[in-house]
Amino acid sequence: MRKYAPVSFPDVRLEGDFWRERLDTVLARTIPSQHKKLGEYGILDSLKLPQPPPPLRFPRHANGFTVQVFWDSDVGKWIEAASYALAHRRDADIEAKIEAIVDDFEKAQAPDGYLNCWYLGREPEKRFTNLRDNHEFYNAGHLLEGAIAYFQATGRRRWLSIMERYLDHIYTVFGSEAGKKHGYDGHEEIELALIKLYHLTKDSKHLDFATYLINERGHQPPHFFDAEREEREEKGIDTQRYVFPNYEYSQSHKPVREQDKVVGHAVRAMYLYTAMADLAAELGDEALKHACEVLWKDVMDTKMYVTAGLGPSAHNEGFTWDYDLPNETAYAETCASVALIFWAQRMLHLDLDGQYADILELALFNGALSGLSRDGTHYFYANPLESDGRDTRWDWHTCPCCTMNVSRLVASVGGYFLSAAEDGIAFHLYGGISTSVGVAGTEVGVREISNYPWSGDIRIELSPETPKAFDVKLRIPGWAKSFSVKVNGEAVSAQPANGYFTLNRIWSKGDVVELDLPMVAERLYANPSVKMDIGRVSLRRGPFVYCLEGADNPGGPVQRLKLPRAAELKAQTRSDLFGGLPVVTISADAVAIDQGGWEKTLYRTDPPGQEKATLTALPYYLWANRGTHSMVVWVPEA
Amino acid sequence: MRKYAPVSFPDVRLEGDFWRERLDTVLARTIPSQHKKLGEYGILDSLKLPQPPPPLRFPRHANGFTVQVFWDSDVGKWIEAASYALAHRRDADIEAKIEAIVDDFEKAQAPDGYLNCWYLGREPEKRFTNLRDNHEFYNAGHLLEGAIAYFQATGRRRWLSIMERYLDHIYTVFGSEAGKKHGYDGHEEIELALIKLYHLTKDSKHLDFATYLINERGHQPPHFFDAEREEREEKGIDTQRYVFPNYEYSQSHKPVREQDKVVGHAVRAMYLYTAMADLAAELGDEALKHACEVLWKDVMDTKMYVTAGLGPSAHNEGFTWDYDLPNETAYAETCASVALIFWAQRMLHLDLDGQYADILELALFNGALSGLSRDGTHYFYANPLESDGRDTRWDWHTCPCCTMNVSRLVASVGGYFLSAAEDGIAFHLYGGISTSVGVAGTEVGVREISNYPWSGDIRIELSPETPKAFDVKLRIPGWAKSFSVKVNGEAVSAQPANGYFTLNRIWSKGDVVELDLPMVAERLYANPSVKMDIGRVSLRRGPFVYCLEGADNPGGPVQRLKLPRAAELKAQTRSDLFGGLPVVTISADAVAIDQGGWEKTLYRTDPPGQEKATLTALPYYLWANRGTHSMVVWVPEA
Repeated sequence: MRKYAPVSFPDVRLEGDFWRERLDTVLARTIPSQHKKLGEYGILDSLKLPQPPPPLRFPRHANGFTVQVFWDSDVGKWIEAASYALAHRRDADIEAKIEAIVDDFEKAQAPDGYLNCWYLGREPEKRFTNLRDNHEFYNAGHLLEGAIAYFQATGRRRWLSIMERYLDHIYTVFGSEAGKKHGYDGHEEIELALIKLYHLTKDSKHLDFATYLINERGHQPPHFFDAEREEREEKGIDTQRYVFPNYEYSQSHKPVREQDKVVGHAVRAMYLYTAMADLAAELGDEALKHACEVLWKDVMDTKMYVTAGLGPSAHNEGFTWDYDLPNETAYAETCASVALIFWAQRMLHLDLDGQYADILELALFNGALSGLSRDGTHYFYANPLESDGRDTRWDWHTCPCCTMNVSRLVASVGGYFLSAAEDGIAFHLYGGISTSVGVAGTEVGVREISNYPWSGDIRIELSPETPKAFDVKLRIPGWAKSFSVKVNGEAVSAQPANGYFTLNRIWSKGDVVELDLPMVAERLYANPSVKMDIGRVSLRRGPFVYCLEGADNPGGPVQRLKLPRAAELKAQTRSDLFGGLPVVTISADAVAIDQGGWEKTLYRTDPPGQEKATLTALPYYLWANRGTHSMVVWVPEA
Repeated sequence: MRKYAPVSFPDVRLEGDFWRERLDTVLARTIPSQHKKLGEYGILDSLKLPQPPPPLRFPRHANGFTVQVFWDSDVGKWIEAASYALAHRRDADIEAKIEAIVDDFEKAQAPDGYLNCWYLGREPEKRFTNLRDNHEFYNAGHLLEGAIAYFQATGRRRWLSIMERYLDHIYTVFGSEAGKKHGYDGHEEIELALIKLYHLTKDSKHLDFATYLINERGHQPPHFFDAEREEREEKGIDTQRYVFPNYEYSQSHKPVREQDKVVGHAVRAMYLYTAMADLAAELGDEALKHACEVLWKDVMDTKMYVTAGLGPSAHNEGFTWDYDLPNETAYAETCASVALIFWAQRMLHLDLDGQYADILELALFNGALSGLSRDGTHYFYANPLESDGRDTRWDWHTCPCCTMNVSRLVASVGGYFLSAAEDGIAFHLYGGISTSVGVAGTEVGVREISNYPWSGDIRIELSPETPKAFDVKLRIPGWAKSFSVKVNGEAVSAQPANGYFTLNRIWSKGDVVELDLPMVAERLYANPSVKMDIGRVSLRRGPFVYCLEGADNPGGPVQRLKLPRAAELKAQTRSDLFGGLPVVTISADAVAIDQGGWEKTLYRTDPPGQEKATLTALPYYLWANRGTHSMVVWVPEA
């Protein structure tokens, strides 16, 4: 079903300033500091079996277990991020750290292949008795992604072999055959990892098991989680309360092909849909593809923050109802936006349609990137769209899932820039890359030069070894009000189809494509069904959504500022805000509610005055890097 | 320290339409339906000991125990409310129901006097091992209040004697003496109940124990809750996690006289402060009074919703930080506003200062009364100040504390109208009452006639048996922009002091005081430190705060409406909204954000239009009685 396939990131060199800076930060600071945190918080110790369980560094969760149940996954994600770093540049120290972890896992692995340090260290007899709540497959999935990445970066197969042994064990216990458990995990993740492994090894058993898990999910009666609970009761194993007492939480309320509403835990949902889209492509499964499209439309039409944040509610870490997008209490977990990028990329390769790339880009530059601080060692787990000035980035989190999700994303971001097919190259993102792609039977050197995302002035140099005819597809972002294309200096006029402008010609060494995407600061309005945003406006320029932060708008909380509809939006490149980093801000004449004269009065009949003011807006992803300040994305209109 | 004392409610006949209707509803519908619910939900069964614990009708709480731990208190509060009903009119059926409950408690009571059905029915050996979390004194306090009310209404002493036996047992276990536990309950309540009992019996041991509890609270090290936990550990009793892991939650973070910030669980805080104010008056304790005043100022200056709702956060059911008053997620538990009324009444009787009566009135007509439906059988536990149209009143609640708090309040509301002293009568609330008060050595018949709270046109008839000189103090509400007073038709001019206008003369039979408090619909603004309300306005008329509800503002969610600052506010009496009940609405010309033309678009650059509209506002307490609709208290200004 797929025509275009992504050009994977080790083959895409990042040369543009924007991503170079983020990548360098992640490689130099984030990934090393994350290993340190894994040590400090006892997560690495928890792999050293057999031994008494490490002291619990965190209070027990209200639901009766500790965060340790997820710790294998955090190690897996760190290995994945660290392996992406190795793919950029081998590093003996990182490799030694990974090898030490692999040593621990190798020692921990049970003779039959089972490998989950939480169960092995604490209650090995209870393994595979509570997939609903306890994440064994989720952990396995992340460990597997780490193993694949490590193998791809280094050629070392030991870790991957350990994981293959574990999978073989899982395949003896779970599956459709009589006598096996007919089940799946409450937290999806292994499905997409198995498809990655299938791509690597071409061993169809992994694809088969991923297919099984996707097909089994949500079938009832009996519902697997009920059958599992009954079995626990028969065995006298404590039946803990369902962490969240409905099947929607884990997208297991009905078979996946019948699902038409995005529900439940946002990260779980995104991982599931990613795997569904992957599998639809692998199997040519139109019903599965259709379900993905219906779910995509549901989230896009009614459930996504303007920042591509997903999941308004901390209660279920996920979705609630249509148009419920509160700003100050937005959960919008970093992981959910990262996972939306995964899903969007899969959808994009089912159909080369710019709507998917638009969301991939939106999530990347806003909801996902906002999770990582400028210094690369502080994080947001939740990404609210408004703050009273009490939100600060954390240097770690009790559940550190988001930290490594953002590092593995940035470390592999090159893989989202372009795709190749037999007869073409498609450019999705811009920002300065070089690569070489096999197209139309020749190797094509590609260089894309731009100051994107700050400027839409893009130059692409193509150098096929031999002149060949093929498509060059240029994404025209949904935010672009206009665009122009030149080939070797000559204007080309045509209309983009599905968000891509296609140039088909015989390309020769030294051909140059120039794409101009004028970036205009503009206003965005929300559907008034989003009651929280009625009478409010947000600002956008290029791929960035903007916010007002107190640091740039002194004199009171930014909530005091109103933006008249007629006020001109002025974009300005500023290098003084973040130690030389050039940033395009948006400023405008505004109105400010007068803050003075209240003393200790809480309510009064005398109205506050208004005064003229100026507002300055900053790309959302940069907020909360200069101390704590109030912040709004949706500004009241004057 | 007290000069004026409240005239208690059985002596104050409600004759005005407003309270007559609410009282009749509570007597005829609320109190009987609550007894039915106590039966349906297994709460009454839970008293029938010894027997196996009743099946758990509710899921276990995340914190490991069920709501049953509070059930004695719910029974106690129902007995209190039902006894207030009996004080209005004896009723054999209600008395039989109460007697049946007393039979159960009598059978359940342990030989040593201990009486808590949750512990006696489940784990009697663990009694008094976890006051931090498990509410034994809290339950005892509510049972005691019920017993006092029942005795006062009927003269039956059996139930009160049972409770006195239980208290005597408590006094042998807890106290300052060596060998006793030095402790208090995590949920305050018994303190104020003990002072009520002292007032009834004049037995100083009850006042002494209340004093002990107030004085002991927050002393450390060792903190009682730590000492108690250590004792549990020594005995091998499960040490459950602190329901909310800080001492502020239960106002036990420091000795009460040192407390200067309102913190923690809102209802706990209000019950504590009520008892503190009571005790300050009993003991003439200036330090305790000062602490009450400092805490009062803190909540008034920075932590109270405009509706007198308290406690913004569901997380701790309580307070967070200064000016944190989110509207849609406001917790503002009904119980907290009811308890604020208790506290305000105690403060008012420490100092006859209108600021306390103003808040008593505000809480009564808004944050408390909003907890009860028109039909008297549906409730709000949380009282948000904005709704997207999904909030509905419940016919019962897993934790039904608020249901009986509002019924006991309404059933005894006459007790808040006026106070008497040796030399005077003070009128706090108006609305149509008659009573007889002993003043200046004579009995004074009092009749207050008005259509308050809808109109401020008030007539008071005074009929002393013999002519006597005494003060008549008329509260001039803080909301009144002007007022006028006539005595026997002749205007009297003077200034009120501390919110009361004092008339001192020789009063004779047939004297008439006329008080006019013009009620004007007006705008209220919040201190801009309340960031949620910047650029917004709320409406008030007399004691009522208003809201916009969808039922009166069709055409889209009320969040679409903006109120221009210059728009005239028009008050209108409407009898068509609630089946003949006269209600004063406020209407004004407004601006509405156009709702059309969006289809499935979530965000767009094209701004929505605005159109002229009219808005209609309704007293807040009446919302959510006509189906589910959107609602706002704080309306954006155009």
